[in-house]
Amino acid sequence: MTASLLIRNVRPNAGPALDILIENGRISRMAKDIAAPAGVAVEDGRGEIAIPGLVEAHAHLDKSLWGLPWYVNEVGPKLLDKIDNERMNKRRLDLDPARQSARQTVQSSMMGSTHTRSHVDVDTDHGLWGVEGIMKTRDEYADIMDIELVAFPQSGLLRRPGTLELMHEAMKAGCEIVGGLDPCAIDRDPKGHLDAVFGLCQTYGRPLDIHLHEPGEMGLFSLDLIIERTRALGMKGKVTVSHAFCLGTAPELVEPVIPQLAALDIAIMTTAPARNTAPAVKKLLDAGIRVCSGSDGIRDTWGPYGNADMVERAMFIGLRNNFRRDDEVELGLHVCTTGGAQVMEIADYGLAEGKSADLVIMPGQSLTDIVVTRSPKRRVIKRGKIVARDGVSVRTAP
Amino acid sequence: MTASLLIRNVRPNAGPALDILIENGRISRMAKDIAAPAGVAVEDGRGEIAIPGLVEAHAHLDKSLWGLPWYVNEVGPKLLDKIDNERMNKRRLDLDPARQSARQTVQSSMMGSTHTRSHVDVDTDHGLWGVEGIMKTRDEYADIMDIELVAFPQSGLLRRPGTLELMHEAMKAGCEIVGGLDPCAIDRDPKGHLDAVFGLCQTYGRPLDIHLHEPGEMGLFSLDLIIERTRALGMKGKVTVSHAFCLGTAPELVEPVIPQLAALDIAIMTTAPARNTAPAVKKLLDAGIRVCSGSDGIRDTWGPYGNADMVERAMFIGLRNNFRRDDEVELGLHVCTTGGAQVMEIADYGLAEGKSADLVIMPGQSLTDIVVTRSPKRRVIKRGKIVARDGVSVRTAP
Repeated sequence: MTASLLIRNVRPNAGPALDILIENGRISRMAKDIAAPAGVAVEDGRGEIAIPGLVEAHAHLDKSLWGLPWYVNEVGPKLLDKIDNERMNKRRLDLDPARQSARQTVQSSMMGSTHTRSHVDVDTDHGLWGVEGIMKTRDEYADIMDIELVAFPQSGLLRRPGTLELMHEAMKAGCEIVGGLDPCAIDRDPKGHLDAVFGLCQTYGRPLDIHLHEPGEMGLFSLDLIIERTRALGMKGKVTVSHAFCLGTAPELVEPVIPQLAALDIAIMTTAPARNTAPAVKKLLDAGIRVCSGSDGIRDTWGPYGNADMVERAMFIGLRNNFRRDDEVELGLHVCTTGGAQVMEIADYGLAEGKSADLVIMPGQSLTDIVVTRSPKRRVIKRGKIVARDGVSVRTAP
Repeated sequence: MTASLLIRNVRPNAGPALDILIENGRISRMAKDIAAPAGVAVEDGRGEIAIPGLVEAHAHLDKSLWGLPWYVNEVGPKLLDKIDNERMNKRRLDLDPARQSARQTVQSSMMGSTHTRSHVDVDTDHGLWGVEGIMKTRDEYADIMDIELVAFPQSGLLRRPGTLELMHEAMKAGCEIVGGLDPCAIDRDPKGHLDAVFGLCQTYGRPLDIHLHEPGEMGLFSLDLIIERTRALGMKGKVTVSHAFCLGTAPELVEPVIPQLAALDIAIMTTAPARNTAPAVKKLLDAGIRVCSGSDGIRDTWGPYGNADMVERAMFIGLRNNFRRDDEVELGLHVCTTGGAQVMEIADYGLAEGKSADLVIMPGQSLTDIVVTRSPKRRVIKRGKIVARDGVSVRTAP
């Protein structure tokens, strides 16, 4: 599913206005006044800004309540309250992963994302229901989104016997990434948990993307164990730590860790949460660490927030990190575009000749303006095809 | 400027659907199937939710760059960098307070605010330029917004001689509230600063709304001096502390302060900043303390963020305070509506018979849905007149 298109008068990354010629789904030329080849549709860029497709590098496509009747959240305060509440109510709430992931994918595409890394619950109550559901969406909506799957033991790996076996099944079924979760706080066996998930990585030759919500010294201990295994197993560049709230604790504890992450090319995913300690994005980027972001769960049993808008997420990164200068605010947009592509190892990503024609055209005076204004007037292009325009997708959600 | 209107089929605060009859700018009846009086226009509420008008309880109407050419922010990291950068560039950037406050007022009304408390810079470089400008807007846009003015010594009160005299002029010119700013950190003379601003309150019989950005123990020291003066001068219920970042520090330091704030009915304004320690909203409300919120500066020389949307602000309050349950998320909306009205002492506020007909009608399944969805499809009613519909105001910004 590829297409050809000539976009006239558009400003790549807020630079000078150019034309972009897309042929067979790839950017073939970026120059002034390109002659339209015969039969190629022309889109007026209206002098708006083009950015590469947004990268949703941390979603949970299987668990959004999007489009279902309003869910009144009365969940308890602990992490396990939310985990158990969700697992126990999935069937009752009719949280069909195929339908819900399709809905979120259409919403996400409409907001400008062209690539998604989704964690997907693997547990003994639901088996591979989630994996199969998102895989169906991945196939059926391949024209608007590239989706990568992380097999995610949301309810714990060791504390619920049978889960590890299901993780093997999920990897065999085609999940690209091994997931993990709070080795101390949830499984209460950091060595056991990490040996198991790194073992899965070794068995299937796949990268790791592990959730680490653990705060302070506990989180830094788990992170140290992750670093140790990454080094010992030669997994440099193949590990992402998601959330990593512990990297927002006391600088004297965090600073010695940063060079180790950089040396092993361990990537960090942050949603830039307002309510938590969080990694300092600029410090990580300055150290050469790959940083990506994501919406995390949107409108699910964990909480009601979220709209899958990675431009809004860039704003959250700015607000959380006190980015005020234009050159700082742009870092948030970098994290939500190129940063995500670096983490997902998308080879043909970017606004350059030869790259896949995945881009978003938005009105704005500058990249910072895009982030703070978050205009809904977006044109989203996936492999050269216009897949969304002003909040209307070419695909209908189920 | 008052009006009559019958709104059919609307759900006050997400309750059962009713009709709302507005006569001469006031809500005269709320009931099912009200017969339309002769000559009264009828508005179809479409079963949407009505909330009382949003209250923008902390704006800086004089300093937004809204509608001006893009300002590339390259300001330094310190608070004084931002203060000096702004003061020194106001004229060069053509930051005319009358025009800019009008622009922000139209934007704010469009998003659903019906009342604004605005701080306004008073300094020796610009005198009462800001006060006069916002007063012009207050008069000319009285049909869409009630505006209250806080005389605000943004550049310091004592460190720049002549400012105190200008503060007297501002109060005589008609500012309703005395402002102040970081008695330790900016003026470096907490006793002098606080004696001066409380003195202004005494002289003019006016309340105080003081900016307090000072962190940790320094902020708590300043707060203690504020509490002491509030008590000594009999100003119970007449003091607001804006930002109060210090109330987000160690619980063992903050907890003894809460009952003192409650006893003296000192109100707290928080923008729920993601980047800072911040007051815990639920703890304050549980203690019976009035809490309001505001957009603070929007798109100004301090930073590019903001759109004057107090529904979005309610979401920020939820995100910052980790509100996930519906009953928690609704607290954010309370702060941005009734909480603000309590702080601004708006006597005839609320969705009830006899109150001023200031309300917003928005689509949504629940109050929490309103906050997280932040629909732009809003109908804003000020004193019974529909002043904005779907993002279009009845007034044109200059």
